[in-house]
Amino acid sequence: MTIYLDHAATTPVNPEALQAAWPWLTNEFGNPSSSHEIGNRAASALNDARSRAAKFFNVRPAEITFTSGGTESDNLAIVGLALANPRGKHIISAKSEHEAVLASIEFLERVHGFETSWLELDEFGQVTNFVDALRPDTTLVSLMISNNEIGTVHPVAQFAEAAHEVGALFHTDAVQAVGWLDLDMQKLGVDALSVSGHKFGAPKGSGLLVLRSRAHAEALIHGGGQESGLRSGTENVAWAVALATALDGLAAANLEADRVSKLRDEFITAVTSKVPNAKLTGHPLNRQANIASFTFAGVSGEAVLLELERRGIVVSSGSACAAGSNDPSHVLLAIGVSADVAQTSVRFSFSHHTTAEELQKAAQSLAEAVAVFIKP
Amino acid sequence: MTIYLDHAATTPVNPEALQAAWPWLTNEFGNPSSSHEIGNRAASALNDARSRAAKFFNVRPAEITFTSGGTESDNLAIVGLALANPRGKHIISAKSEHEAVLASIEFLERVHGFETSWLELDEFGQVTNFVDALRPDTTLVSLMISNNEIGTVHPVAQFAEAAHEVGALFHTDAVQAVGWLDLDMQKLGVDALSVSGHKFGAPKGSGLLVLRSRAHAEALIHGGGQESGLRSGTENVAWAVALATALDGLAAANLEADRVSKLRDEFITAVTSKVPNAKLTGHPLNRQANIASFTFAGVSGEAVLLELERRGIVVSSGSACAAGSNDPSHVLLAIGVSADVAQTSVRFSFSHHTTAEELQKAAQSLAEAVAVFIKP
Repeated sequence: MTIYLDHAATTPVNPEALQAAWPWLTNEFGNPSSSHEIGNRAASALNDARSRAAKFFNVRPAEITFTSGGTESDNLAIVGLALANPRGKHIISAKSEHEAVLASIEFLERVHGFETSWLELDEFGQVTNFVDALRPDTTLVSLMISNNEIGTVHPVAQFAEAAHEVGALFHTDAVQAVGWLDLDMQKLGVDALSVSGHKFGAPKGSGLLVLRSRAHAEALIHGGGQESGLRSGTENVAWAVALATALDGLAAANLEADRVSKLRDEFITAVTSKVPNAKLTGHPLNRQANIASFTFAGVSGEAVLLELERRGIVVSSGSACAAGSNDPSHVLLAIGVSADVAQTSVRFSFSHHTTAEELQKAAQSLAEAVAVFIKP
Repeated sequence: MTIYLDHAATTPVNPEALQAAWPWLTNEFGNPSSSHEIGNRAASALNDARSRAAKFFNVRPAEITFTSGGTESDNLAIVGLALANPRGKHIISAKSEHEAVLASIEFLERVHGFETSWLELDEFGQVTNFVDALRPDTTLVSLMISNNEIGTVHPVAQFAEAAHEVGALFHTDAVQAVGWLDLDMQKLGVDALSVSGHKFGAPKGSGLLVLRSRAHAEALIHGGGQESGLRSGTENVAWAVALATALDGLAAANLEADRVSKLRDEFITAVTSKVPNAKLTGHPLNRQANIASFTFAGVSGEAVLLELERRGIVVSSGSACAAGSNDPSHVLLAIGVSADVAQTSVRFSFSHHTTAEELQKAAQSLAEAVAVFIKP
């Protein structure tokens, strides 16, 4: 029996989410923009999904824009907010962000002449100089709420407040955080928050951007004016319904993060005691419940992954988000890990259903897997 | 029993396409970028879908970029090709294009300083001055292969050849044409061709751009470098598989266009003989098989739509692609129809399964529906 511990890469689709989407893939195939009844029913389903998603993030329905996923949401927020707010051309972000954020910023620099200040990070991935980085011409800050590889959580509510004091907008990539951290937008105070459905049981190709009505953004995909003009194109009704249903499921089970957090700590203790060269990456306490990542100096992360897979444990050597890349993790490099050591990283990421038994088996298998490569 | 004649707005999902997608929504949930077997199987499915789509358009698999739909494909082609080819800032297009094309061009004008020449159209929607519009600084031509409202077909192969002679790139929006016109890229000779899955039995949220390898484009959605860097974000494997399966189905049944074309001509004859004020829009012969659209001077198109719906006939008053808009069709305005008359338009669009009996019923119901509003 395979134990899948790569939920930060992608998750199985929640059967309830798929079931809720099913009518909108079969009999109810209308285009929400059509004036006839078949179209009207699709429009109603979309509105209902939007309201449910809005409730999850504690915003108004008009502040939810459905997209095709987290990468699109990040691009729409960063490029869209930067282009629509000609206050200045200064951006603040961190080198430990997801590629979707880094590449959106690189595009703004290369094509639109923006300048970026990269925040300083300590060895745990925490930002050490946020307020100092703010400038009068800062247009936008983009900082993820939690890191997808090392799990470190940033105090975005506090940073957003500081950013607003100088008049800058604040975007956070919350792709890894849904279901694990409190994403109440009233508490976070950020202007935009990116979400990817396939990280929490909705299908690949589903996503949304929460964009507060005070923040204006240029669309990334222009056309018929769907999604209040922010995201044109016939709406993927089925995946909007699936996404809302997966969010509803998380809202109903929101205490699981504490349980998983305890399992994670036990797992970290087990690994660091069983595996001599294991070193936790990211902050020991200030980390998301479902991510535990390590380096194993001297042992290739890819090799450990294969040995674990033979033993029925499925994990990741870093993130799965850079297509086909064998480069060392840019996140680990950003927090001062050497390129050699970064190549030894292995990430374990859990679901709300992960059990203590599975993690005991994983820790034991990991010890065996690493031992294969360590000469006595 | 409802007779759905709004296939140009959207189509029911082909059950075979949904069935083929099913494993990739359930057990096979891997991220194609993951190094483990679950991820590898997803990557294989994606590659297979890409190869099958490539075969349909007679290109190499690397020339297929999966997107979230036709609007994204149009944006990627137009904005992407224009930004990556700094030869000049002159674009050629027509006011009868889809909103996705018009809005992409408007973005290039507004944000990037491009200039557009709008082609002249005759009363049938045909271009009359193509070669004259070409300039030494023309970077890109975007002209749909067939119009989504009036069905008029443009000779894009001939126009693409002329565009290439001055060094311009040629994009065509083929969103309405899949399954109805020959889209062999070797014959068409265009550089880029946009496709939307939900117009031919694949789900909403599926689409692709065919981009010949000689043409370079800036990505619209930047990130982890998926889809050869042209379209980042975790791939929607299930919808790529569904799209390829729907294309396979069309390839197997490609003679249906002739049958539907004959039905359409009979329908046009029936309508124009039964309904005194009916006037066909678009070219009488040079039109796509599955679209017949009319104006009914003095009678609101929306009102006719409702009367038809009461009689079980589902159609559209113009296109469904401009969200919630009650403006007169920009396509009809572009071919010289007055705003008053444009408000009277009704479009009938057929599938490969539409029957003669259905169209006889539709013509009869239309005569009754229009008669409701005509005082004797």
